[in-house]
Amino acid sequence: MEKSVFYHAGCPVCLSAEHDIINLVGASNVDVVHLGQDKSKIAQAEHAGVKSVPALVTPNGHVLHINYGASMADVKG
Amino acid sequence: MEKSVFYHAGCPVCLSAEHDIINLVGASNVDVVHLGQDKSKIAQAEHAGVKSVPALVTPNGHVLHINYGASMADVKG
Repeated sequence: MEKSVFYHAGCPVCLSAEHDIINLVGASNVDVVHLGQDKSKIAQAEHAGVKSVPALVTPNGHVLHINYGASMADVKG
Repeated sequence: MEKSVFYHAGCPVCLSAEHDIINLVGASNVDVVHLGQDKSKIAQAEHAGVKSVPALVTPNGHVLHINYGASMADVKG
């Protein structure tokens, strides 16, 4: 199965959601990208349709925005 | 593994998220509750911490609000 990508920015809401998603989906099925630490991935995330973090981009390209940690504008700031 | 519970209300956002979650987690690991059709479950969902649908309540009791379909107030209306 192609992997999902979990985008987050290190906020508490993000980390809690990350643990939940990894428990549910399995660590081997998810790539985790920390946009706060790797700002070069922000454009990739926006291109995928990510409006806020945490968000999970599924293998078929759907974006699941989970709870609410920070907007992409906040991540860039 | 104890099951997660996916609460939704039949809205297009909900149905899309339902398909994504079932693909990711596996249908056998998720109970799906349609609050529009089964209003008796609304109190249970609120007690679990669900503020809007679609939402996934994990086996450890965390609530993942996914995208945004409708508030619980809308579901009751």
